[in-house]
Amino acid sequence: MSTYASIEWKNGVVRMLDQRLLPHRTAYLELTDEHAVAAAIRDMVIRGAPAIGAAAAYGLALAAARSGAAEPETLRADLATAAAALRAARPTAVNLSWALNRVLARLADPALSTVEELRAVALAQAHAIAEEDVRTNRRLGLNALPLVPDKANIVHHCNTGALATVDYGTALGVIRAAHEHHKQVHVFVDETRPRLQGARLTAWELSRLGVPHTVIVDGASGHIMRTVGVDLCVVGCDRVAANGDTANKIGTYNLALVACAHGVPFYVAAPTSTIDLSIADGDAIPIEERAAGEVTHVGEEQVTPDGARVANPAFDVTPARYITAIITEMGIAYPPYRESLAALVEQANQGRG
Amino acid sequence: MSTYASIEWKNGVVRMLDQRLLPHRTAYLELTDEHAVAAAIRDMVIRGAPAIGAAAAYGLALAAARSGAAEPETLRADLATAAAALRAARPTAVNLSWALNRVLARLADPALSTVEELRAVALAQAHAIAEEDVRTNRRLGLNALPLVPDKANIVHHCNTGALATVDYGTALGVIRAAHEHHKQVHVFVDETRPRLQGARLTAWELSRLGVPHTVIVDGASGHIMRTVGVDLCVVGCDRVAANGDTANKIGTYNLALVACAHGVPFYVAAPTSTIDLSIADGDAIPIEERAAGEVTHVGEEQVTPDGARVANPAFDVTPARYITAIITEMGIAYPPYRESLAALVEQANQGRG
Repeated sequence: MSTYASIEWKNGVVRMLDQRLLPHRTAYLELTDEHAVAAAIRDMVIRGAPAIGAAAAYGLALAAARSGAAEPETLRADLATAAAALRAARPTAVNLSWALNRVLARLADPALSTVEELRAVALAQAHAIAEEDVRTNRRLGLNALPLVPDKANIVHHCNTGALATVDYGTALGVIRAAHEHHKQVHVFVDETRPRLQGARLTAWELSRLGVPHTVIVDGASGHIMRTVGVDLCVVGCDRVAANGDTANKIGTYNLALVACAHGVPFYVAAPTSTIDLSIADGDAIPIEERAAGEVTHVGEEQVTPDGARVANPAFDVTPARYITAIITEMGIAYPPYRESLAALVEQANQGRG
Repeated sequence: MSTYASIEWKNGVVRMLDQRLLPHRTAYLELTDEHAVAAAIRDMVIRGAPAIGAAAAYGLALAAARSGAAEPETLRADLATAAAALRAARPTAVNLSWALNRVLARLADPALSTVEELRAVALAQAHAIAEEDVRTNRRLGLNALPLVPDKANIVHHCNTGALATVDYGTALGVIRAAHEHHKQVHVFVDETRPRLQGARLTAWELSRLGVPHTVIVDGASGHIMRTVGVDLCVVGCDRVAANGDTANKIGTYNLALVACAHGVPFYVAAPTSTIDLSIADGDAIPIEERAAGEVTHVGEEQVTPDGARVANPAFDVTPARYITAIITEMGIAYPPYRESLAALVEQANQGRG
């Protein structure tokens, strides 16, 4: 396990590592209600699809604990309101809705007849989601082992490690599992503009894990493939549509196209909680547009002229045809994804049911 | 003409706009010897292949003026030493060598029999290179007009405007010519990590020219092509090999691959001075590796963990097969480039001869 936790429940409050301060400072925030959790998700104190799913579930547990409702139905109504606020925090990652829906479905059980029971179940569900995330990521990493050759050069985009999850990581979990199995991997870390999650967070995590790595600007991946050689790319995802189209951090699609041109396998690490079978293809995935300031400034440093117009889509969609395989905790999905993803999600639901 | 000059000769010194301070401050440096000019090129006070060619020529004129040589042969030896220092400042752009060789060849004329004559000719040659650069860029821009449709969405990488040349620009000159011909173009400006020449310099120039533009991170170009639509990409270059392989700012190759995947034409704007027929293909072009600090820091802001390992290739090579056409002041070269480029260079040499 990691020596740092992206999120944990402690003495009735939610404790989060403030990822905006990394790699230079390690500081924690203590959040006492769902509004603070929603704000932390929106402001990217915590980010990464699995991590914000767990955060939303804990936000609901906080709302349950804080509600003054005396009747179960009043509490259920309060939690529906809290869930709406949490759901609105960020639009692209499906895990946020997935986690909220899972807790709310459990709380809808008519057998839960007291507010005390509802509160206990809300917290137990949040803990279950968090614990399951770590197990899921470890299984996902092991499933990927056959895809990672010895001495592999790997390009990774954004951050998908313990920080982006409850622990262990998804795409970084794939790299971590290979490293733990002595595969002597080397990671080219896309710095990942605009928020530099690669430079700030992934380099920090890989350094702690002892995984050899080199930070590059996002535009250098093709040059590295052409001149050094790369064996595979692996990225995380915020939402996978039923046909395999994948939304992930802006720059992922460019990396996939560059990998394709070089015949480099391009893998997406996706816990089944990230697969949204209700969406037919990537065009239906909402893409968050974030504030211009993320592009115009780096820390205190303004890099554009005053008043410069900026587009800042936080995510892009990589069409399924550029994805070699999608790695889940239930196994590896290959094209055609409509069938293979549905089968893995079905298995996951049975396992959970 | 621009209201700012990247470089000019004034009262016996070389005056350069310090581009490291843009877009926030407009300040000029006055350089009095060739070592100061070489340092300015190395430290990127001035950058852009055509601009550093002119800078090197003026550096040689400064060396000629400052030399205490009493005999022509002594002065020629001093200038050979000065040229070597200037040539070593940056390795990738061929214009630096091209300009130095052109001045030295002219100075080798045995008819020049006094140090006064040599000094005058060195300065006259530098002025000729500078003036020719502006004419060249204007012609290049006009030649490109048929390639730019009305209301074109254009992606541009790095900076190739008046700042990167003596005036008018190369790829940005193409955009400028289209704008001056009322084509209502819109430019997506790749910010161009690590040094952010797009965000800092190109946005500044386009704003002054009144050309509508939107700054994006380098990783967003594919998303923009897929969701908004792009009509063409146009970039500059630091060296074009005989077969059309082109070295340009890191990130150019990724953009070319992304354009190719979308069927978007990818144009290189290349004054014939940037074409190096002595090099068969791109593998022989030296790629400068610059300091890690350009990636680890943005201004005063450190973005990576302490001690992070970084690769910082300043350029990449785009293979000719991804380049739709190469636009020069002599006309447009289409594949196969070995023939078309040789013909245009031959024409340029005849025009100059």
